[in-house]
Amino acid sequence: MIPKSYRQVVLARRPPGEPAESDFRVEEVAMPVPGTNEVLVRVVYMSLDPYMRGRMREQASYAKPVGIGEVMEGGTVGEVVQSNNPAFKAGDVVEGRLGWREYGLSPGHNLRLIDRTLAPISTANGILGMPGMTAWFGLYEIGQPKPGETVVVSAASGAVGQTVGQLAKISGCRVVGIAGGAKKCAFVKDELGFDAVVDYKAGRLDADLQAACPNGIDVYFDNVGGTVTDAVIPLLNFWARVPLCGSISAYNAEKPEMGPRLLWPMVGRRVRMQGFIVSDFAPFFDPARRRMGDLVRSGLLKYKEDIVEGIERAPRAFIGLLRGENFGKLQVKLGPEPGK
Amino acid sequence: MIPKSYRQVVLARRPPGEPAESDFRVEEVAMPVPGTNEVLVRVVYMSLDPYMRGRMREQASYAKPVGIGEVMEGGTVGEVVQSNNPAFKAGDVVEGRLGWREYGLSPGHNLRLIDRTLAPISTANGILGMPGMTAWFGLYEIGQPKPGETVVVSAASGAVGQTVGQLAKISGCRVVGIAGGAKKCAFVKDELGFDAVVDYKAGRLDADLQAACPNGIDVYFDNVGGTVTDAVIPLLNFWARVPLCGSISAYNAEKPEMGPRLLWPMVGRRVRMQGFIVSDFAPFFDPARRRMGDLVRSGLLKYKEDIVEGIERAPRAFIGLLRGENFGKLQVKLGPEPGK
Repeated sequence: MIPKSYRQVVLARRPPGEPAESDFRVEEVAMPVPGTNEVLVRVVYMSLDPYMRGRMREQASYAKPVGIGEVMEGGTVGEVVQSNNPAFKAGDVVEGRLGWREYGLSPGHNLRLIDRTLAPISTANGILGMPGMTAWFGLYEIGQPKPGETVVVSAASGAVGQTVGQLAKISGCRVVGIAGGAKKCAFVKDELGFDAVVDYKAGRLDADLQAACPNGIDVYFDNVGGTVTDAVIPLLNFWARVPLCGSISAYNAEKPEMGPRLLWPMVGRRVRMQGFIVSDFAPFFDPARRRMGDLVRSGLLKYKEDIVEGIERAPRAFIGLLRGENFGKLQVKLGPEPGK
Repeated sequence: MIPKSYRQVVLARRPPGEPAESDFRVEEVAMPVPGTNEVLVRVVYMSLDPYMRGRMREQASYAKPVGIGEVMEGGTVGEVVQSNNPAFKAGDVVEGRLGWREYGLSPGHNLRLIDRTLAPISTANGILGMPGMTAWFGLYEIGQPKPGETVVVSAASGAVGQTVGQLAKISGCRVVGIAGGAKKCAFVKDELGFDAVVDYKAGRLDADLQAACPNGIDVYFDNVGGTVTDAVIPLLNFWARVPLCGSISAYNAEKPEMGPRLLWPMVGRRVRMQGFIVSDFAPFFDPARRRMGDLVRSGLLKYKEDIVEGIERAPRAFIGLLRGENFGKLQVKLGPEPGK
């Protein structure tokens, strides 16, 4: 049943700006045999996330870069096909960080058993996984929204943004999304129920955002940086909080782009900006995941996935993600879901 | 004993960039007679502070602007010369916000009686006044320094900066000041005892700052913004704190200048930036002032003042302050200190 080889995607070279497909290489490698305590996993869903661009750089950011010729890093959901570890058995569905590959070997301790009764297994890469945890902890621990406040989130139809906005709505806030293009904007407003949405591609960002936020902005959950964030800063209220989750607009830049200096307005308005990485909150994931699972099953929290099939399509899909071409949580499906 | 008139400085027009002396006007006005509960104060020391530039603008920042023809706002230390208020009597020395004038009338409730046994009365405009409180609360409440951490402060010889650095030393930190010119730098290192100082005018800011901070930067107390802050950002450690106290480099600008975008580096390093205004902590000033008074009297906390004489010199001195020409806490002395 287990094939003799599988495919994986390695970093072929470090792109100087926007990555090209040639910066990646699809390789066929021999199937490993699990050693003592090891677990062999067949990957079903492979997550593609903006942070991966940082791993392609020479210099370490908050994590060590992927080496040239090494498999791209990333979260995965898969089926245990062989296990020498007493904690796992064949057929178990597990979440782990196995990277861009069809099969992966794990020492077991970094795998998490997924309860399939909670939600579709792909959500372990999405709303009940890293992006969902990012939304929950960034919004509540750093954003600290209060009922009636205005919460703005950029990349609002993305994996993190869609969850941030819906959670803020559940918490009694007025929620404004920023997204690119009519289709994403309609989804954010009509499907997710945000109070308003602003299309940053429509060419009137400052005016549209101001119109959408008549009472200013109390929490800005920043996924993008750049000119979108420039438009938000002047609207921040006294004591506003800005969870800094990502700056996708900067990920392909070789050196920081220039933008208007934004520190002075922050002084008098007591704005607090705080960078965070979701793993800071890892000890608290389980209870948050239970609460979010309840919200998903009750229908209060929706999620949209964008699923591409086949590992060979991963590089192209990832490049599109950095361009904002995905629509919802981007994943690559590598094979069938295991039977229940 | 009380003259029939006194001088005051009003805002003559709103400067488009760097203020000129002609943006101010010195007026002679009739001495007022205190009404019910009112107190007449002869100003001895008039504080000049960078925040005053914000009050000269049309748009409100965190406080309402000074109107054209209105007296410039500001902190003062003076002697009560006439009082219809039971809380004050002639001869009392008081701190208040009477503005740029030789005499001022107060309803009393916003005057604070100064205990002359604690320290020279001019310190009520300086290390035991607004700038000292700014240093204390910005450093401790927002910067949260821990022993062994590296604390960097810009405008290090200024009213706030000199106090921030000395407090951080007392708290067991390695302290690096950034100041302009050899004289200020020598003062910061030799007189105030900072561990290192960097001259931002020497043309090697990035390299000098890196050399002065071999373990990176844990707290950056920002008084200046602009290119000095640009040099600090890349050196911030994981979980660094940045109290945003002011951005003097931007105060004369009509619109935000451009600078390198700095949000992305903040994400992974979990940098927290927080603007604050000293008055947020007003309910807690008294105990902080007592602690700082103890430190001043014990000689652990030094202060340097830059005192100009005569109200007619205030506009020129204020323009110089925005250029960094002052050396220590800038004040204008309007008349003799009252006899004890």
